[in-house]
Amino acid sequence: MTELLAGMRVIEGSAFVAAPLGGMTLAQLGADVIRFDPIGGGLDYRRWPVTADGQSLYWAGLNKGKRSIALDLRSAEGRELAVSLITAPGPDAGLFLTNYPPGGWADYEKLAVRRPDLIMCQIVGNPDGSTAVDYTINAAVGYPLITGPSDHAGVVNSVLPAWDLIAGMTAATGLLAAERHRTSSGRGRLIRLPLADVALAVLGHLGQIGEVTINDTDRPRYGNYLYGAFGRDFVTADRRRLMVAAMTSRQFRGLVDATGVQNEVTDLETRLGKKLRSDGDLFEAREEIAALLETWFAETAYAVAAERLTEHRVLWGPYQTMREMLEADPRGSVTNPLFAEIEQPGIGKLLTPGSPLDLGAEREPPHPAPQLGQHTEEILSDVFGLSGAEIGALFEKGVVASG
Amino acid sequence: MTELLAGMRVIEGSAFVAAPLGGMTLAQLGADVIRFDPIGGGLDYRRWPVTADGQSLYWAGLNKGKRSIALDLRSAEGRELAVSLITAPGPDAGLFLTNYPPGGWADYEKLAVRRPDLIMCQIVGNPDGSTAVDYTINAAVGYPLITGPSDHAGVVNSVLPAWDLIAGMTAATGLLAAERHRTSSGRGRLIRLPLADVALAVLGHLGQIGEVTINDTDRPRYGNYLYGAFGRDFVTADRRRLMVAAMTSRQFRGLVDATGVQNEVTDLETRLGKKLRSDGDLFEAREEIAALLETWFAETAYAVAAERLTEHRVLWGPYQTMREMLEADPRGSVTNPLFAEIEQPGIGKLLTPGSPLDLGAEREPPHPAPQLGQHTEEILSDVFGLSGAEIGALFEKGVVASG
Repeated sequence: MTELLAGMRVIEGSAFVAAPLGGMTLAQLGADVIRFDPIGGGLDYRRWPVTADGQSLYWAGLNKGKRSIALDLRSAEGRELAVSLITAPGPDAGLFLTNYPPGGWADYEKLAVRRPDLIMCQIVGNPDGSTAVDYTINAAVGYPLITGPSDHAGVVNSVLPAWDLIAGMTAATGLLAAERHRTSSGRGRLIRLPLADVALAVLGHLGQIGEVTINDTDRPRYGNYLYGAFGRDFVTADRRRLMVAAMTSRQFRGLVDATGVQNEVTDLETRLGKKLRSDGDLFEAREEIAALLETWFAETAYAVAAERLTEHRVLWGPYQTMREMLEADPRGSVTNPLFAEIEQPGIGKLLTPGSPLDLGAEREPPHPAPQLGQHTEEILSDVFGLSGAEIGALFEKGVVASG
Repeated sequence: MTELLAGMRVIEGSAFVAAPLGGMTLAQLGADVIRFDPIGGGLDYRRWPVTADGQSLYWAGLNKGKRSIALDLRSAEGRELAVSLITAPGPDAGLFLTNYPPGGWADYEKLAVRRPDLIMCQIVGNPDGSTAVDYTINAAVGYPLITGPSDHAGVVNSVLPAWDLIAGMTAATGLLAAERHRTSSGRGRLIRLPLADVALAVLGHLGQIGEVTINDTDRPRYGNYLYGAFGRDFVTADRRRLMVAAMTSRQFRGLVDATGVQNEVTDLETRLGKKLRSDGDLFEAREEIAALLETWFAETAYAVAAERLTEHRVLWGPYQTMREMLEADPRGSVTNPLFAEIEQPGIGKLLTPGSPLDLGAEREPPHPAPQLGQHTEEILSDVFGLSGAEIGALFEKGVVASG
């Protein structure tokens, strides 16, 4: 196995999703990612879902493959250890990822005194540094008002913390890009990553800013219809639900052939006075198209529909609960090389994903998350070169802990 | 201005969201990203939203800062140009990002004959290489069944193509990590990135696999409640809607103080026989807590609520439509250094985001997307070193085009 980022060391002072995901992404590619936490755990240490014993499945999920050191961050001595860790020498070190709020002991200005070429990625809420989280940002950028049934009066929050997840990956990208630049220029830098900007940038990337400012449209709710092409959920005769999509004219022809509605579509085209070719045409005629397909699906058993859709290379898939995905779909099992079943300390045997970046034969299997403070002693020894006696004294004073 | 990735060259053969976003992310950090397309445009060239003239705001949004070359990919000569572009020499080149389906002329094995240290990131649908898209994957992993009002009977599709967006950022990370490794090892590689694995990995990262396999729970719909802590939408006396969250005990105390429900919460704690301290406690008592707050919000004007929540450092924010974000919220304007208003060819003046990675004074302002084939001539000259006459001949034969 080749670990792509072997040798790189990243220090992480973090909680919740974005920063931990950024660090874990680098850890799963082989970097030595050291997460420091207050003794007893940070704000996310008990975050749900938890097991019956109160062990956080969430914390275990977001810290796989990292090393953990627990420090008394309320004491000057504990904070000094954190600063020393962040600014430790070495060409592959000096990378710090955090979502700690600005203005404290871990400010870039102060840290850069100790290591001028430090690269720090600091995830903040708003561009002005004020607090905002995935849920409040999602409310602000409009998606809850265009998600859900078209006759729904309220808002529909996202269950997936998508902005946090995208931000975490953006942070990983930013650290690698800055480190590449440092290799040639010798220069470190502070990179601020406002979570709100991650969402606002996506509005621009997907054309939704222009939709408002150029087209003068505030997009309404389209329910489960895919925007800008054809796609929707359908229910089969045996009450299974599936998602069907056609992004291109070839895919639409496949869908028409699979469902045998050629004549009906020809009639529809006559009625509309145009061929349904472009994705825009498909979107505009979505309700008429759906009405034709609804009838077919309602009369067709799932197994038959599945076979015909696949045969005609239609984009489709069943709706499944998470349990169904994990119990019945081979993608959600060790059949998929993404996964291995590993022993997660404190939790037990757990189906665990590695990096989705598939390096083939060189793919690294997933590693468990550490227990809090599991590597405290090891890190004090291998990063700081402290002796057993010095380490013992730190434990005795309560400046560090192994749990 | 410093462009972090200046010098790096990435070739992109792509359509839709994930691969174009990955390339654009690198372009916005300074890489020379060359997107090649068939003459007349690829499958996403007219994708909605489009302007009244049919110009795609979506295509413009996902290709900012790239160079564009248009090739006749149906001809052997056009494909040869694409292969030469992908495998062109140079230590900072030889990076290829694509979501073209496996098995064609752009297979890694064939390309690596020409440049053995080629790094290629190929986004595919399923881990076995079969087709899947954001919408069908989202259906398969369970979110549409746990999104939306708790009494909703159907599924709620995501309007945001979150898996595509996360995949695009994962691809950018993968390319940078592989290039870092190549710099020391000299080795290129193929990285496959199955979109389904991006989603499945997130189920593991957020603890949702353990929720099923360890806790034996298939998470139900919790409506707009934030899972595992306290959070929900509330409506004020003047009918404005806002999102309120408390992830920690301090944040919850702030919320209680802001809304003046101290006595009611004390009564509730007595009734429940425990203090509401941990985020898990808050989640379990979410309906009782919400009932207390609902009354307060219903009697309080938005302006007053906003002031009190902010004063007590509560996590909160208004729900806004995209138009409201762009017309009334300073974050959605040039006040935010993320944005500049630039001239987008074919579209006009457009509020355009740069990279959300904020490099401070060295932040690069956003560049427009190219017009299709805008750089065909320039690329033939500066990458291949062709003469004016040679380039003219290629145009004449229709092997290349500038539109």
